Amino acid sequence: MPEANPKNGFVIGVDLGGTKIFAGVFNPALECVATTKVSTKAQRGPDAVIERIVRSVQDVADEADLDLKQIGAVGIGAPGAVDGDSGTVIFAPNLPDWKDVPLKKELEKRLGITVVVENDANVSVVGVHEAELKGKPRSVVGIFVGTGIGGGLILNGALYSGFNHTAGEIGHMLIDVNGPKCGCGNKGCFEALASRSAIFQRIKAGIKEGEKTLLTEMLGDDLDDMRSNDLRKAIRRGDKFVEHVIEQAAEYIGIGVSNLVNILGPEVVVLGGGVMEALADEMMSVIIKTAKDHAMPGTLKGVEIIASKLGDNAGITGSAVLARRAAK
Amino acid sequence: MPEANPKNGFVIGVDLGGTKIFAGVFNPALECVATTKVSTKAQRGPDAVIERIVRSVQDVADEADLDLKQIGAVGIGAPGAVDGDSGTVIFAPNLPDWKDVPLKKELEKRLGITVVVENDANVSVVGVHEAELKGKPRSVVGIFVGTGIGGGLILNGALYSGFNHTAGEIGHMLIDVNGPKCGCGNKGCFEALASRSAIFQRIKAGIKEGEKTLLTEMLGDDLDDMRSNDLRKAIRRGDKFVEHVIEQAAEYIGIGVSNLVNILGPEVVVLGGGVMEALADEMMSVIIKTAKDHAMPGTLKGVEIIASKLGDNAGITGSAVLARRAAK
Repeated sequence: MPEANPKNGFVIGVDLGGTKIFAGVFNPALECVATTKVSTKAQRGPDAVIERIVRSVQDVADEADLDLKQIGAVGIGAPGAVDGDSGTVIFAPNLPDWKDVPLKKELEKRLGITVVVENDANVSVVGVHEAELKGKPRSVVGIFVGTGIGGGLILNGALYSGFNHTAGEIGHMLIDVNGPKCGCGNKGCFEALASRSAIFQRIKAGIKEGEKTLLTEMLGDDLDDMRSNDLRKAIRRGDKFVEHVIEQAAEYIGIGVSNLVNILGPEVVVLGGGVMEALADEMMSVIIKTAKDHAMPGTLKGVEIIASKLGDNAGITGSAVLARRAAK
Repeated sequence: MPEANPKNGFVIGVDLGGTKIFAGVFNPALECVATTKVSTKAQRGPDAVIERIVRSVQDVADEADLDLKQIGAVGIGAPGAVDGDSGTVIFAPNLPDWKDVPLKKELEKRLGITVVVENDANVSVVGVHEAELKGKPRSVVGIFVGTGIGGGLILNGALYSGFNHTAGEIGHMLIDVNGPKCGCGNKGCFEALASRSAIFQRIKAGIKEGEKTLLTEMLGDDLDDMRSNDLRKAIRRGDKFVEHVIEQAAEYIGIGVSNLVNILGPEVVVLGGGVMEALADEMMSVIIKTAKDHAMPGTLKGVEIIASKLGDNAGITGSAVLARRAAK
């Protein structure tokens, strides 16, 4: 480890979400040595959120017994369209009033450290590509299934963000023209069929229609505190209804995978996000089978379809990777 | 024009299709100065088709009053998965028995000229990018609507063909999970909803259900010789049924465009192929409106959605562009 120059050795990765700010300090071996998590308080507006990011960065450095002067750079993954060159958040559906916010500039002013900003799904696929796949594959499609579905693309060995920095909006790929309404206003988007929100809606609708499930025993009738882990627990305790709903979501994810394989011909498809972290064992075989059934002949030869092992850490890891590149 | 070295000045572009072989000689200004068209006779197998390509190249050179020695290189667009580096046709659904055919090697042996081979939709998008868009946009999605639907991607300024050389198989992007059966075995593929075949099927089904159309007057009851141009003629003569079918296909194409915009964030989306050549005036406004209704906010800012003016010449033009690069 290049201890001689700790300034460039340690970096901080931040995952800015609609509900929480997750930050981690990474050592020169890209190992996470400290983390902090605070709520975003998004409703307080951009300035207050930026202040909370500053505090998170200061706190997590302190947690790792480091001074900010010892941090080479800070990387941030933000939930929206981001211009990575200028570090501006163009818009962010889950962060009220965020429109053309110069996040990099504001943070550098307050922190006195180099800051790099990218879209959250983009940093996650960078994290998986670099830390989990050792940077080897030339093309990776990352599919992150959580409240919504985000995507990130590694093409020709590098992050691909497209003309308007919006590439990877795979959650709004329409796959069922007559499907359920999506938050975006359209019908049958990928995320209206296979995200955690879609799964939870289908479970609640099933219960209303008289389906029996262990979830009501576990969580009460309103299921307000339901999490992806609860679904795994219910399935492992023999809940056929939840098993069926999850299988159906896995089939939609498999169709999403095959669409992206047909369009982009990647070397690796990696699935991540909270839903996959909780339910990969239950979903992966269905996802892979459905993708193979639907992808064109020849497109999947030698292609890996895998669940990421980074889980919730993909975002802070990828942000740290981008920070490390910016610090050099 | 570099007349001093005609050897590198003229190239030949070939569009190898399932039914015809279309070849053109291009001068140093990338103007097409002669063309020939012969039937492919695909059922005779790879060797016979390769012989017919050789003859097409010889004939079109002669048509332009050139000797083969004056041709810098030959480019070929082939209908299937092509390894552009080795010039091998990996598989081609519409060419019986074509599996790992070393087309470049065989043609170079017979012609004594440098040959470059690529997928047909890929060469078409190269042709549009270079000849029509002057190479300016960094990212272009080409959508070619004919018997099927093919796609080609220009990303970071260069043709993108992916890990297995299959990128751009957009015709088999599933957009209606409960839609009509596709030739590939799946249901609701883009090309099962919006290709010429899909449009013709919908027209024939409508007639069986009692729809009235001028097409039966124009072509007889079986409609066996129906072409895209006939649909345009019928619409211009006031055929409401055909107009409705074409509008529906245009809506599906608009959804295909918005999916690709959400996923790839291109700078230009260009629509080509026989259906667009015949019906662009009837379809483009519906395509653009539907794409705008479905694409995510911010993704279409400054993005052009246009119909190619190259028409049937996109393939030979793009093949000529690749030939010119290979000849250098």
